[in-house]
Amino acid sequence: MPSPSRRSRYIPFSPIRAMFRLADEMDRSGKGPVIRFHVGDPDFAPPDAVVEATHRAMREGKTHYPQSVGVHELRLALTEKVTRRNGIAAEWEQVVVAPGSTEALLAVMEVALDPGDEILLPEIYWPNYGQQSLLASAKAVFYPLGAGYQPDVEGTRRCITPKTRCILINSPSNPTGAVFPKETLRALYDVARKHDLWIVSDEAYEDIVFDADHVSLGSFERDLAEAERRVFSLFTFSKSYAMTGFRLGYIVAPNMTTATILRKTQEPLVGSTASMIQWGGLAALRDDGPIAVMRDAYRRRRDLAVGMLREAGLIDYTPQGAFYVLADLASTGLTGDEFARALLEEEKVCVAPAAGFAFAPHYGADGNPEGALPPDAAAPDYPVNPKARHLVRIAFCVSDKDVEEGISRLVRFAARCRDRRGASAR
Amino acid sequence: MPSPSRRSRYIPFSPIRAMFRLADEMDRSGKGPVIRFHVGDPDFAPPDAVVEATHRAMREGKTHYPQSVGVHELRLALTEKVTRRNGIAAEWEQVVVAPGSTEALLAVMEVALDPGDEILLPEIYWPNYGQQSLLASAKAVFYPLGAGYQPDVEGTRRCITPKTRCILINSPSNPTGAVFPKETLRALYDVARKHDLWIVSDEAYEDIVFDADHVSLGSFERDLAEAERRVFSLFTFSKSYAMTGFRLGYIVAPNMTTATILRKTQEPLVGSTASMIQWGGLAALRDDGPIAVMRDAYRRRRDLAVGMLREAGLIDYTPQGAFYVLADLASTGLTGDEFARALLEEEKVCVAPAAGFAFAPHYGADGNPEGALPPDAAAPDYPVNPKARHLVRIAFCVSDKDVEEGISRLVRFAARCRDRRGASAR
Repeated sequence: MPSPSRRSRYIPFSPIRAMFRLADEMDRSGKGPVIRFHVGDPDFAPPDAVVEATHRAMREGKTHYPQSVGVHELRLALTEKVTRRNGIAAEWEQVVVAPGSTEALLAVMEVALDPGDEILLPEIYWPNYGQQSLLASAKAVFYPLGAGYQPDVEGTRRCITPKTRCILINSPSNPTGAVFPKETLRALYDVARKHDLWIVSDEAYEDIVFDADHVSLGSFERDLAEAERRVFSLFTFSKSYAMTGFRLGYIVAPNMTTATILRKTQEPLVGSTASMIQWGGLAALRDDGPIAVMRDAYRRRRDLAVGMLREAGLIDYTPQGAFYVLADLASTGLTGDEFARALLEEEKVCVAPAAGFAFAPHYGADGNPEGALPPDAAAPDYPVNPKARHLVRIAFCVSDKDVEEGISRLVRFAARCRDRRGASAR
Repeated sequence: MPSPSRRSRYIPFSPIRAMFRLADEMDRSGKGPVIRFHVGDPDFAPPDAVVEATHRAMREGKTHYPQSVGVHELRLALTEKVTRRNGIAAEWEQVVVAPGSTEALLAVMEVALDPGDEILLPEIYWPNYGQQSLLASAKAVFYPLGAGYQPDVEGTRRCITPKTRCILINSPSNPTGAVFPKETLRALYDVARKHDLWIVSDEAYEDIVFDADHVSLGSFERDLAEAERRVFSLFTFSKSYAMTGFRLGYIVAPNMTTATILRKTQEPLVGSTASMIQWGGLAALRDDGPIAVMRDAYRRRRDLAVGMLREAGLIDYTPQGAFYVLADLASTGLTGDEFARALLEEEKVCVAPAAGFAFAPHYGADGNPEGALPPDAAAPDYPVNPKARHLVRIAFCVSDKDVEEGISRLVRFAARCRDRRGASAR
């Protein structure tokens, strides 16, 4: 057979899905049940109204091709939502529906970047960003995060080169749970404006912010002329309404020009988004009640997890959004990867090693990752940002009981590792 | 704002969707109803069992992230289907589910091609192929079609250069309705094998073949060693089960290596395919009855349309699959575009000008389309293959009554155009 493309071979596997398989195998082999902290999939059911509206749409014949950019009624409702709740000045033509915000992110990268361009990503990040930059033949440059995983704005500015075209900002953040204060977001916005960069603002967790109001980067340019706007805002139904399996997200393009380009790119990318699912999404927008209920649950679980982890000396910050916390296992002497595998084996608790959220390819002179291309289909093994070496991500979107039990086991296991380490050092 | 990427700006609009808007405007303004021959969306409803299985899946909590490559039960059922019906030797790991075969096509192009590589497309083709090659920063090279829109194998061979990496084959064809005989497919396969090219076989219309059995290219390499296989087979639920709005398709990768790479690329491309929709698809596979009923209806309509068009001297071939026929309006003196707009205006019948199925960018020395980049978001205006100048595509996936009435009007209108032309020439 011919050689598969370099861009596809450069893509590493998602580390979340690797742990997924290990946990599934354990459950299937009867050694479970596993407490599942490794995947950001809410334990809630979607609102009944969504299920019934999706069903009704199918029965009413909404089973044909919708427009590539989305069902008109849904776009209108989303325009109202982003105007009212996100403070973004958008016409309905700027709202583009997508089969999940993952696809939306890729679509935006394809519009923002040409092969060889540079995109700034946070140094600890959702792995799909890194996969997407490789697929788009763009070069990822990682901007530094400081205490509490807050962006180092001055350090970010220093990452900019003449090839930088775009910065990705993700607040609340997956995997850190950090929420960036308005001043930080503003400072990042100003850097992007000064250097004429696109901004990709992934706001998947906009509704899960515990101690403040969510700030949308798009709101900063509400009063600018269209041609001056640069923020692509990305949202999803997945987390706000526990609709991960529906695959429904949307983009607000900064202006009509970029909206028109996205209208073109959605055709070759996906054709369109499932029709009945969009009618389900429209039903979701009619009632914000479930959002508040879920947010309160996540806050309770966050407090529970953070209290126990802090007491055990495994965290030094408090996540203020999303449903993730990064625990630091340096004191056990184990890497995040070693810890995660041993924890699963010994305690039936599954977490995600943060190394997978911090792979950092070295790029050669030709713009491609250096020395990374393995034979055949084995995934490349990229260098990992040393800051992530001893971290694991815990997703507390499971029941309160599982949070309590799972974190207890994790803390107990970490203590045991420390003891073993102490013993072997003696 | 920064400049949008060249690859996104190079993408032209789909011509089908342009006519879509004009027809919608006419219907909305009360000047309709329009007979809709412009879009390949079956007038049938999906099977009840699909609607109910999708609903049941939602109610049973199948609303969470599925695996990126698809729900296991569906992959098993699809493996059985492609083995039995398509004669493809596939393990279940080679089957990758996608949110529509449009996305599946792009995923395969990303795996097969690097920026600058060449892909062979038929010279009259489904426009998304062209859009996709531009998005992938690949160069489309168009292979010639002869009588009845059959591939000219020798002419195809002459299109191959050292940069050619892939050939796309689409039988039954959209927009021509041509079905390629087994010997032609075999000859194209042999050319691809000799020159070590990937084959992308788009078999969206596999179940709509009127006068023969469908032949899957993947069946030719059933007995080859895995490493020798090169056919990506693409299928969809859209046409076989009237499920266009569900967005559900799948890829059969040639071997485990490419399947593994696709497993990686689906993560950054789409994350996964909606869970409940996949359970709906599984229900569709359990009953082939609806396929035969729809095929019989399409055959009847094909016979009806072809009879009238032939009598009017507007076609010189018989489409043998899909639900399309290309009518030739050269005798009216109008281009396909002029004819389509005038026909809609005067007769409320909407067809798709074939120019949109035959745009052919000239590429410059840098590998990018030449002189095509317009300012801002206007779509580029590519040269059109002269063979398509006077053609329009008629999609006969509307009711028998509409086929009869719509083709009558079209034939009548074409006669009127000829008369006017004759009068003005006198």
